[in-house]
Parts: sequence; C-alpha cells; structure tokens
Amino acid sequence: MCALRRPTLTAFVLLLSITLSEAEDATPSPAPTPELYSAQTLAEMRKLEQAALTSDYAYRQVAHLANNIGPRLSGSAQAQKAVEYVADELKKLGLEVQLEKIMVPHWVRGEETAELVAFPGQAEGTKQKIVLTALGGSVATPPEGLTAEVVVVRDYDELNSLGKEKVQGKVVVFNHPFDRKMAATGHGGSAYGEAVAYRGSGASAAARLGAVAALVRSVGGAANRLPHTGAMHYAADAPKIPTAAVSEEDAELMAALAPQGPVKIHLVLTPQTLPDAPSFNVIGDLKGSEHPDQVVIVSGHLDSWDLGTGAIDDGAGVAVAMQTANLVRQLGLHTR
Amino acid sequence: MCALRRPTLTAFVLLLSITLSEAEDATPSPAPTPELYSAQTLAEMRKLEQAALTSDYAYRQVAHLANNIGPRLSGSAQAQKAVEYVADELKKLGLEVQLEKIMVPHWVRGEETAELVAFPGQAEGTKQKIVLTALGGSVATPPEGLTAEVVVVRDYDELNSLGKEKVQGKVVVFNHPFDRKMAATGHGGSAYGEAVAYRGSGASAAARLGAVAALVRSVGGAANRLPHTGAMHYAADAPKIPTAAVSEEDAELMAALAPQGPVKIHLVLTPQTLPDAPSFNVIGDLKGSEHPDQVVIVSGHLDSWDLGTGAIDDGAGVAVAMQTANLVRQLGLHTR
Repeated sequence: MCALRRPTLTAFVLLLSITLSEAEDATPSPAPTPELYSAQTLAEMRKLEQAALTSDYAYRQVAHLANNIGPRLSGSAQAQKAVEYVADELKKLGLEVQLEKIMVPHWVRGEETAELVAFPGQAEGTKQKIVLTALGGSVATPPEGLTAEVVVVRDYDELNSLGKEKVQGKVVVFNHPFDRKMAATGHGGSAYGEAVAYRGSGASAAARLGAVAALVRSVGGAANRLPHTGAMHYAADAPKIPTAAVSEEDAELMAALAPQGPVKIHLVLTPQTLPDAPSFNVIGDLKGSEHPDQVVIVSGHLDSWDLGTGAIDDGAGVAVAMQTANLVRQLGLHTR
Repeated sequence: MCALRRPTLTAFVLLLSITLSEAEDATPSPAPTPELYSAQTLAEMRKLEQAALTSDYAYRQVAHLANNIGPRLSGSAQAQKAVEYVADELKKLGLEVQLEKIMVPHWVRGEETAELVAFPGQAEGTKQKIVLTALGGSVATPPEGLTAEVVVVRDYDELNSLGKEKVQGKVVVFNHPFDRKMAATGHGGSAYGEAVAYRGSGASAAARLGAVAALVRSVGGAANRLPHTGAMHYAADAPKIPTAAVSEEDAELMAALAPQGPVKIHLVLTPQTLPDAPSFNVIGDLKGSEHPDQVVIVSGHLDSWDLGTGAIDDGAGVAVAMQTANLVRQLGLHTR
C-alpha cells in the first residue's frame, strides 16, 4: 500500500494488520538511500535505541496480547479484542487512529484426535495415540471420523511412484524431515520453506491419487510430540481431503510400523470454514509537519494461530511497532 | 532379592520386573572387589563390548517394545504383552525363563482437559486452553469437571503463608521452576528430585488447606507445552483431591494473570483406580556350571508411563538386559 521511504521520521504510520497469508515472494528490490542520515537523525536514533533498552513497554504489550487476550485466530473474538486494545493504546499515545475494515478468513478448529487401531505386534484390544492438529483451512472428516490404512512417504517423488493403485482410499503420511543441518548453519528459513511445501500442497497431491486424508510431519526443528499448525491450500484440480500436522515422534512411529505390515488409523478432524468475517487493520499515524505525504511504516500482524498465544508470531512485531510510537512520543521527537 | 556378586559370569539372571515406584534411596555401600578380574574374564568382557557395538539386537528390542507394543502402564494389556514378548525372546535365546506372579497398581487415564474461563482482560465469550495431564494415582473430578479460582504459589512456604482463608475452595498451582542451572552443571537428578517433591506431595499439602484440586508445573527441563506425568501420593491425613501436571507455559500463564485479578479454571480429570491387577516379573536364568547359587543380575522394568511409548524409561533398560543375554549366548560364553 505504502512503500518504505526515506529513513528519517517524516510521517509515521503504524500499520497493524490482520493477515493469514504466508510471506510473499514478491520482494521489491531496495531503492538506493536518497540521502545520508543527518546528525540530528543519528542522534535521535541513538536516543530511541537507549530508551528502548530500558523500557518494558513492549514487553507489557506483548504480554497483554498473549496472556490476557490470548490466541487471535482471524475472525475470532480475541482478534477483534486485539484490534480494539491496540487502537485504544495508540490513541493513548496521541496517535491519529483509523480502523480500516477488511474481510478475513474465519476457520474454526474442532475436535482433532487420531489413533492407530491396527498395526503389527499390537497387544489385543489396544490402540496407539497419534498426536496431531488440523492445518488451517482443512476440511473435516465425517463427525465420527474415518478409518483407513496409512501409506508413509518421504517426498512427492515417492508418493507419485506409488501411483493410484497404492494410494487410493488411504491416508498419506508425508514424513519429510526438517533439515536440521541446514537450520543449524544459519539457513532456518530455507529449511522451513523446503519442508513447508508438503504442509501447503500435500493434501492436494495425495488427493489426486485418491487418498482420503493427508498427514504432514510437523514442520520445524522440534523433535517432541507437539505438532505445529499453519496454513494449507487446496489446488483447484484435486478433491478436498482433510489434512493435519502430525508430531515428528508419531510420523516416525508410523514410518517404523508401516513396512512391517498394514497400519490402520482412525482420524477425527472437525474444523469448520465459516463465511469470511469482518475485521480491521489498525492504522496509527503521527503526521509529519513538513512531509505529511511521506511515510515510514512500522508494522506487525494482530492475528495469530490458535495453538499457542501468538507471543512471537506476531505479538512481538505488534509490540515493537507500538513501542516505536511510544518512544517517539516519550522522547518528544517530532515527525517531519 | 539377590545381591550383586562378583563381576564374573557365574550364574546369570535377567530380572525384568514391573514397578511403579520411584528410585529408592537405600543404596547399599559397595563391597570391596573380592578378586581381580582374570585374564579370561577381561578378554570375554572385551568380546562382549565389541559385539555390542556392532549389534542392533537391543535397538530392535526397544523398538518393538515402544513402537509395536507401545505404552505399558502397569495393569494394561500392553504391559501383559510385554511380559509375554520378552519371556518368548529370552526362551529363544535358550534361557530358563520363569514368570513370577505379582499384583500391580491398575490406574487408568481418563479425560483430562482444562481452560481458563475467567481472567483479566479476557475477550468476551472466550477461554484459554490449559494443557495438563493427570498424575498417576490421582482421583477424579466430577465427570462434568469443577470450576474454581486458582491460587499460584512457588513453594510450600508460600502456600502455607496463605493459610486456609486464601486457599479454601481454590485450585492451587505449584509453579515451582525446575532448576535448569543445577541440571546444566551435571546435577540433573538433584534438580529433578527437588522439583518432583511438589508432584509427589503437592496435592495433600493443598488439600490440608481446603483446596479442591492441585496443579503442579510439569517437572523437568522442557520449556514447551508438553506436560510430564508421573506418580503422586496421597498423605493419610489429608483429603484426596484431583491433581495434574500443567505445562510450564501454562503454569507461567496463570502466574502472570493471577496477580492482575481473579482467574477461574474449569478442570476435567476422570482417571480411575481399579483393583490391583495380576502381572509378572520375567526372570531369565543362564545357570552357572560351578556356582549355580551365585548370581549376576542385569535388569530393567517392563512397565512405562502412558503418554509416550516408554522407549527410554525403561524400554532401553530392558533391551540392554536382553542384549547382554543375547551376546553371552552368541559369543558362546559359559556362565560359571
């Protein structure tokens, strides 16, 4: 909407938006710096830095968003509360605040349980719990769930090599490991991007071969039994099948059992996709005195996924933006 | 039952027992080594070591116990299956196998959910999920659960300083942090022991002051939202109240909210304590030729908690004991 302009405090806009989309690839190439920082700007930047290091304002804001309001899934009452809270806080700081109405996805998590009901070596009458969480946007299983054999693959090549014959009617488990070595050498984002491809498109790839559901090994470096939700997308050319992230431990469990004989899973996922809901971008403006038409944007997104409390993604981003406005006011700096 | 004797292969007993008790304090003081290792013994020990390093037998055994049989809570069908499996495997190795009948606790996990239903700053109509797991031996809440205000304390001193007036009718949360510094400096066992005191006895301490339930911050170094079960004990002089481990993240959430105003939790825990169930110690014996009355015991416990699959505690111990017998046979060593 507004491009990032000269890095001096001209007009100052906080854009606190609702967004469910992943980071986009379209990064504009950076414009050359139009002028050097003035001595005054440098001094003001240093003041801001020092003030930020001794202030707990941002911490208190993110704590309120995470602890008191809690998870803020788009379309939820908590997301609306966050809009109101942040708008009020920005007004308290003396900013000119606008609420920009937008429509947002309204997906609601339901029941989500799974268990292996047949597997080699099983003690009679027992099941093994599988820890999973529906992916954002997933359709539901029937309310009573579905039961089918699992087929475990490491990647799309392995899936496609199986063909319809071996996938039809089954639950495909994408057991694609997160590349910890890549992450450990400073390329965490690339490692995430590589693994997240299965989360985003795995369901449609499996559905094209007749799968009845798709499970994706939880994306990220956590080697424990916490699955990690996130967005998924259905391709136009494939049936929509329910899909969930399964904990790394349980993906490995299924990968260990399946080569020994048939493994059947009972899967219950009952999320709902409601009609898009109204929400708001919160825009706080500190108008510039000389160049009110030029803007510097500091922003974050108010909504969050719902398994945690959205402290980091993106409570922290929102709080940093609020802190910036707070310190500009507190230090008596004037936006030009 | 049998004391550990001279470290040479005399008679050799594998004792694979069912136990729910914590490690006992009564460590016998070590006896002086009665004789030096003979050259033959040393050579045999080296052979065993080398063979162990190239064998995947122990890995395959622990994988079967964890993956195929799964969690083995005492009294469960899985625990019985583990008894039968290990007895069969030891027979295959040519050991003389006895099943020693014992009675074991039979506690069955039920539903376990919790949510904060009132807290400062709450968005209207919302709740915050609290992740917890019943502690082994806990009694149940009513089937529909209970709702009460939480009171968060760090330790017994703080609890007792509050007195009945401030605890009566409430849910006590023991937010006692695990000492990570102590653990990082090589004293993990002591750090665990110090924190586990609240898990073992917290419910009774809270109940003496009239609490209706007790939640204990999950014991151990994990800073995520996975709670860690384990045994608890009711004192004879206190009412029995339901108790659960709450994830570190959620203990901290309640600790952050409670000082701001009343925080109410709705808690559902429906475990059952059934009558003690029959089970078996599995004893595999490689009789010695010269000293059949003397024994070396290598042992582990077959049962496990039920949240994971009992791979480490104590599938690994059982597999190491089985591997020892396997290698003694494979290398043609003779127990004297």
